[in-house]
Amino acid sequence: MSWSGWGDPAQARELPESVRGLLRDLLGVRAPATPAAGLESVRLAPVALPEPLLKALAEIAGAANVRTGHEDRVRHTRGKSTPDLLLMRAGDGSAAPDAVVLPGSHEEAAELLRLCSRERIAVVPFGGGTSVVGGLAAERPAERPAERPAERAAAGSGFAGVIALDLGRLDRLRSVDAESMVAEFEPGVRAPDAERLLAGHGLTLGHFPQSYEYATLGGFAAARSSGQASAGYGRFDDMVVGLTLATPSGTLDLGRAPKSAAGPDLRQLVLGSEGAFGVITSLRLRVRRAPAERRYEGWRFPSFTAGSAAVRALAQEGPLPAVLRLSDETETLIGLAKPDSIGSGGSDGAGGPDGSGGSDGAGGSGCLLIAGYEGAAIGARHAAASAVLARMGGEPLGPEPGRAWERGRFSAPYLRDSLLAAGATVETLETAGFWSNLPRLYDAVRLALLGALGPAHPPLVMCHISHVYETGASLYFTVVTPQDADPVAQWQRAKTAVNAAIVEAGGTITHHHGVGRDHRDAYGAEIGPLGSAVLRAVKAELDPAGILNPGVLIPPPP
Amino acid sequence: MSWSGWGDPAQARELPESVRGLLRDLLGVRAPATPAAGLESVRLAPVALPEPLLKALAEIAGAANVRTGHEDRVRHTRGKSTPDLLLMRAGDGSAAPDAVVLPGSHEEAAELLRLCSRERIAVVPFGGGTSVVGGLAAERPAERPAERPAERAAAGSGFAGVIALDLGRLDRLRSVDAESMVAEFEPGVRAPDAERLLAGHGLTLGHFPQSYEYATLGGFAAARSSGQASAGYGRFDDMVVGLTLATPSGTLDLGRAPKSAAGPDLRQLVLGSEGAFGVITSLRLRVRRAPAERRYEGWRFPSFTAGSAAVRALAQEGPLPAVLRLSDETETLIGLAKPDSIGSGGSDGAGGPDGSGGSDGAGGSGCLLIAGYEGAAIGARHAAASAVLARMGGEPLGPEPGRAWERGRFSAPYLRDSLLAAGATVETLETAGFWSNLPRLYDAVRLALLGALGPAHPPLVMCHISHVYETGASLYFTVVTPQDADPVAQWQRAKTAVNAAIVEAGGTITHHHGVGRDHRDAYGAEIGPLGSAVLRAVKAELDPAGILNPGVLIPPPP
Repeated sequence: MSWSGWGDPAQARELPESVRGLLRDLLGVRAPATPAAGLESVRLAPVALPEPLLKALAEIAGAANVRTGHEDRVRHTRGKSTPDLLLMRAGDGSAAPDAVVLPGSHEEAAELLRLCSRERIAVVPFGGGTSVVGGLAAERPAERPAERPAERAAAGSGFAGVIALDLGRLDRLRSVDAESMVAEFEPGVRAPDAERLLAGHGLTLGHFPQSYEYATLGGFAAARSSGQASAGYGRFDDMVVGLTLATPSGTLDLGRAPKSAAGPDLRQLVLGSEGAFGVITSLRLRVRRAPAERRYEGWRFPSFTAGSAAVRALAQEGPLPAVLRLSDETETLIGLAKPDSIGSGGSDGAGGPDGSGGSDGAGGSGCLLIAGYEGAAIGARHAAASAVLARMGGEPLGPEPGRAWERGRFSAPYLRDSLLAAGATVETLETAGFWSNLPRLYDAVRLALLGALGPAHPPLVMCHISHVYETGASLYFTVVTPQDADPVAQWQRAKTAVNAAIVEAGGTITHHHGVGRDHRDAYGAEIGPLGSAVLRAVKAELDPAGILNPGVLIPPPP
Repeated sequence: MSWSGWGDPAQARELPESVRGLLRDLLGVRAPATPAAGLESVRLAPVALPEPLLKALAEIAGAANVRTGHEDRVRHTRGKSTPDLLLMRAGDGSAAPDAVVLPGSHEEAAELLRLCSRERIAVVPFGGGTSVVGGLAAERPAERPAERPAERAAAGSGFAGVIALDLGRLDRLRSVDAESMVAEFEPGVRAPDAERLLAGHGLTLGHFPQSYEYATLGGFAAARSSGQASAGYGRFDDMVVGLTLATPSGTLDLGRAPKSAAGPDLRQLVLGSEGAFGVITSLRLRVRRAPAERRYEGWRFPSFTAGSAAVRALAQEGPLPAVLRLSDETETLIGLAKPDSIGSGGSDGAGGPDGSGGSDGAGGSGCLLIAGYEGAAIGARHAAASAVLARMGGEPLGPEPGRAWERGRFSAPYLRDSLLAAGATVETLETAGFWSNLPRLYDAVRLALLGALGPAHPPLVMCHISHVYETGASLYFTVVTPQDADPVAQWQRAKTAVNAAIVEAGGTITHHHGVGRDHRDAYGAEIGPLGSAVLRAVKAELDPAGILNPGVLIPPPP
């Protein structure tokens, strides 16, 4: 994984001239960004953790698994949001941990947490490092504004240091219960490895978020991930039937049955807890038979409104495809629904970013919908869903748009790197709401972005629906805007405006990215002061010293 | 609702002689129970609440809605578990509230909670009064064993009194969002009224637990109810997309989207909280189109094992019927799968309790499965599910067993009253687990019951599977045993043994009845000391004075 961008640096691609022209003419991007710093030139503070504490950590995890080298620290600095990447490209290592510690078992993780609690060492659990919401940058006491003396007092004299607790050694499939269709994994298993391990049993999780190639199962659970095939396989939190959480106060082991009436579902308190309550050390996941067939195809709808009504009909009447993704007019036009076509100069004839349309008929007008079917004997499901889509005004485009989407389904983050280097800021954000409120949410987000980033050079704002429920759906936005002199501050202003707009319009602040630090205040507004107080009470019970991912998730007291 | 039994006293039925014979010959029931006390002779303590507090309550809810009359108090004493009924039949009103208070709005409920918190008045939220787990009997300080002095100290000088907070005035359908398929209800709406209100919009909840005729929506949410058609419509907690909770510390208003990655799902902390965290004052529920067709039918399987494999195949491969219920050999034989046939002397030719079998071919041997289909165009679903059932060894029995089950689906509690009067104790209990663990759970529960209630007159233990998931299912047991001189203590011994067996065998202590007081200790064992501490921390935040349903749900500190 690139330390200042996405994925395998060998896969980075140059933008074709057509896209450069689009950036220049449509968005007013004038100059490429300053080239990224080299890894060795990232500025890090000296290791704050005193030697005896490093030794104590090493006594638990082994000396080889307590790492303070420059590269280890840089590679565990921040996540993969656009501001994260902009800061890394600028050589800003201020959020680096003092050390990276890799426990080899639940017991070691638990013992490390007890030590860190006792010695006031902040702990940032680290899986694939793909957070896009500031979930991996511990708040250091110095950051706390002076207006919050009570909070500062509660934090005592601050932390002795910060460690990244890298779960990469906990990478095993522990068991498969084929009768119950449950597999038990350690948290550090990356998604492609999980699929590889399950494939040997003829099984799959079916969880394919855009971060698929690098993210870990523990991260999916901690941040309530949702994959591109969520309509068929469910969200990741739907798959979790049991889990183990190591906390400074002890261990939680939850999930004796798929569902229960034994009180509140405490699994649902751990899911989405983003490392602020503890470290997930085991996950029991519902698995499915690996699909015998796959069939992806495209449909065109005359408008986002018409397409939304069609996906709503599928969600409410059924049957649902496994993949369902509807791009709005702008996203369809720009062709980001098929991001791979951008790397190839728009020359594949499949509706390139030049807006010229292509042989599949999807380009240029209306809205593109991708419907994908997976499983055994998918014919009947395909036929029934196709009948609904046709009835709702869809025009079938055949398999080519589906194939194009499949080829590019994990490549958008690479495109972002190229655009960042070219002088454009690209970022994504998402919300969700009930069907009747989606138009209001859609307008509110667009207006906030246009207001905060325009008017001289209005940003490009694209949207798609890719996760549907009977009662509502998510809206996923991609924004492209020319970088000004301080692109981090520029995006922060836009983000603040969008967060406020989402809260005001009644949406949830995130559908599958998580809260992190970037959504923390809006999350507090969403759940209210009493909901926030409940979270603080739970955290105080599980993490009395407040060492776990400080600053992340939990809204501070008023 | 009968104050000492179930439902409408006019519907009570005499047991036919064939059943009396069965009780006598198979179970050794020798004598009818002592006749039930009259309502007026139930022994109540004087109202403990002092006059100024009653006045303060009346200032909030109105004088007509603060009731201290004998009948009001008796009718809010306990729930509908068999021990509850035995105690009520014996005239034991020791668990009666001092007053019944009926708030008329969220605001009144919130204000009542603030008053009660300040004045240390215990509050038992009361919906339909159908708890079967001791969820409606507040623990009074005097009950606390002397071995727990710390707990007693924490409770201070005890409560000024206990009120039942009857939610019967909060009985409105507040809104229907037909686009989002969401209906907002007040909590005191009884299930049949909810269906009637929704039918005007062509909608349904599809939630039909055995308590359907009397239970309320708020109670379903507070206790995580699951209905007979859960395979098709989901559990009640699946239907809740938003809710409002009044607590002594303020109001929680949750649910801005069907699903979210905004932190832990706090809705799931309220669902199952059984009135210990607050009072649910509003529910936003996912609704469905009222089904155009219904089709229920029977299948016979050679054994419970074979039938279990068949329902597992449906749960894992699909498609699922809306209703799916598999009786074990004993339940099939006794015919409790069609409880209405008992009231009619077994003369309807549909496999009566005399074990003689009937014209539908379901009696006597093997295991009966009921499969019910509901919706629009159910033909394809019926055909596909029937193919799976046939492949797994099922023999179709046609519609008659389905019709018989449908006729009797809500009448088992009436049968219990008749059996109680005849001198037999009847009680139900349930658990759930993962498929691979179900045989162990099944054996553990049966062994515990036979051990605790036998060996002189072994009880009749029947079981069915009626809620299935991809990864597991629930087991629902019905026990019939002759009453000894102290049937409450007799059942308590059996219950203690079964609870321990379920915990030991790795099941959850309840699948849809809830925790109440009867499962509280086992629940503590299930979630462990840290899970219990988390619940206490949440309760301390929301209910700092500990007035809400004291003794229910929350495991006490060690």
